[in-house]
Amino acid sequence: MLDTLTICIIGAGALGGYYGARLAHRGNNVHFLLRSDFNTVRQNGWNIKSCDGDFTVAPQQFSATDDPKKLPKADLVLVTLKTTSNDQLESLVAPTIKPGAAILTLQNGLGNEERLAALFGADRVLGGIAFTCINRIGSGTIHHMAEGLIRIGEFNGGASPRASRIAEIFNDARIKCTVLDDLRKGRWEKLSWNIPFNGLGAVLDWTTDRVIGTKQGEAVVTALIEDVIAGAAALGVTLPEGLAARQIEKTRPMGPYLSSMQVDRREGREMEVEAILGEPLRQGMAAGAAMPHLRMLYALAKAVDAGKK
Amino acid sequence: MLDTLTICIIGAGALGGYYGARLAHRGNNVHFLLRSDFNTVRQNGWNIKSCDGDFTVAPQQFSATDDPKKLPKADLVLVTLKTTSNDQLESLVAPTIKPGAAILTLQNGLGNEERLAALFGADRVLGGIAFTCINRIGSGTIHHMAEGLIRIGEFNGGASPRASRIAEIFNDARIKCTVLDDLRKGRWEKLSWNIPFNGLGAVLDWTTDRVIGTKQGEAVVTALIEDVIAGAAALGVTLPEGLAARQIEKTRPMGPYLSSMQVDRREGREMEVEAILGEPLRQGMAAGAAMPHLRMLYALAKAVDAGKK
Repeated sequence: MLDTLTICIIGAGALGGYYGARLAHRGNNVHFLLRSDFNTVRQNGWNIKSCDGDFTVAPQQFSATDDPKKLPKADLVLVTLKTTSNDQLESLVAPTIKPGAAILTLQNGLGNEERLAALFGADRVLGGIAFTCINRIGSGTIHHMAEGLIRIGEFNGGASPRASRIAEIFNDARIKCTVLDDLRKGRWEKLSWNIPFNGLGAVLDWTTDRVIGTKQGEAVVTALIEDVIAGAAALGVTLPEGLAARQIEKTRPMGPYLSSMQVDRREGREMEVEAILGEPLRQGMAAGAAMPHLRMLYALAKAVDAGKK
Repeated sequence: MLDTLTICIIGAGALGGYYGARLAHRGNNVHFLLRSDFNTVRQNGWNIKSCDGDFTVAPQQFSATDDPKKLPKADLVLVTLKTTSNDQLESLVAPTIKPGAAILTLQNGLGNEERLAALFGADRVLGGIAFTCINRIGSGTIHHMAEGLIRIGEFNGGASPRASRIAEIFNDARIKCTVLDDLRKGRWEKLSWNIPFNGLGAVLDWTTDRVIGTKQGEAVVTALIEDVIAGAAALGVTLPEGLAARQIEKTRPMGPYLSSMQVDRREGREMEVEAILGEPLRQGMAAGAAMPHLRMLYALAKAVDAGKK
């Protein structure tokens, strides 16, 4: 343990559970706010099946509550709430805030830092992009299948001692973490994977290998990534050359992977349509990009989300 | 029987089988070219389960072959081949053609009359739009669930004694048939149903009632019909006001209906992506329409067709 920061994890699903468990396992002062798994986790702790080695975290090594008012004041608030619950951000996060507290959102898609900045002040806010394959496979039990890197950056841009310190705490807890100078660029790079693979995974109910299993499927992925590049460019973010081909090749070794939106569809849960598809489309279009393929994908994803069984 | 025309039916799936059986049942001189159901139909005839009354047609009441060279020369060639086999049109139709013969295609989508005109001369060609719910439910057995109207028109436009005579023969055989002055307009009107409901049925694997079961689903259907209206308008075809709302309301009483492309997907058969989606998109875009939703639907349908199991 490098530090004695008080860390609150808001929303302990797969993402918050996994990263929070690693931080607690290392001996950090971690407090979870969770709902569905509250009783199991409070009684039995966390059970992590990880490709980097399984571990458990006993209930004595952290605190957990389902009531935001029972959280301590935090030095670092980690927001891992599903974006479909963003209307609850204020009531869940406000009780933990104290002067000087930093808020780091690891949520998917676009618009989350903006929302936290509007509620709690832009100065407090950092964003992080998690590159990891994790699934909640039971109450308090998380399966970490691959990767785990987080890239974090200041909402206001640039490097900061605060970001470096958070990265140090994460790395010390065996969570690979690097600091981004340009968080916005990082977000759009991540979107260039999330938009095609989460979007098509959800709309077609296809695993990633099936999406890119034919040249016609690759063509749809490529068209969507070109829309993302155009949207980012309209906002002044230059994405690298050859991005579509690289994202497709990076996805092949993942095999029959279910994106998070496809998992949500299959389990009948609300899909993160707005954060992953709607908000990038709105921001890109407002800046003058057309994004025609994304526009239809967004309309289809809303229809699938509303009509799923 | 009004006439002693020799009628050849090219491609006797559900559509050709149903209409051909009605013509043969009435005593017309009907010859079927078919492949998969050849042996059953030659031995047992046609078995039609119809909402207008079941009937059978004995093998003595028609002829059937699987070899186009064994067809007689026809006065009327009815083309009911699946458009995915259009590359075989010349070899299948050419042997039946004699001077003065008329060719009426009842195939789905756009581009079929053009193809027949290029092969056999525009003068010979008529097109027909079939409004019917039929399914092949077994070898030589067809289920006619609803409607049955055909609207026919000259490829070159305008009314003709020939079109009226064909309509008379059809009506006499209990096939409702009307003559269109403007075949192109009829085709685009039909596309305003086929594009959203066949396209989304195939891509989502959803029955029509599920597609329009939410306001988000209705929004996608409406956006696609607006693309169709724009494509038609660019080609000089004015579709009626309020078309989207009317098509949606017309579809509600159909209940959980599987469009033909959805049936093809489920049965692992090639889907009519080009005739129903690709050709309208190409014609509309060539005339200056953007059709962004159709563009993505077409790309998705190609991916689904290639990646279906």
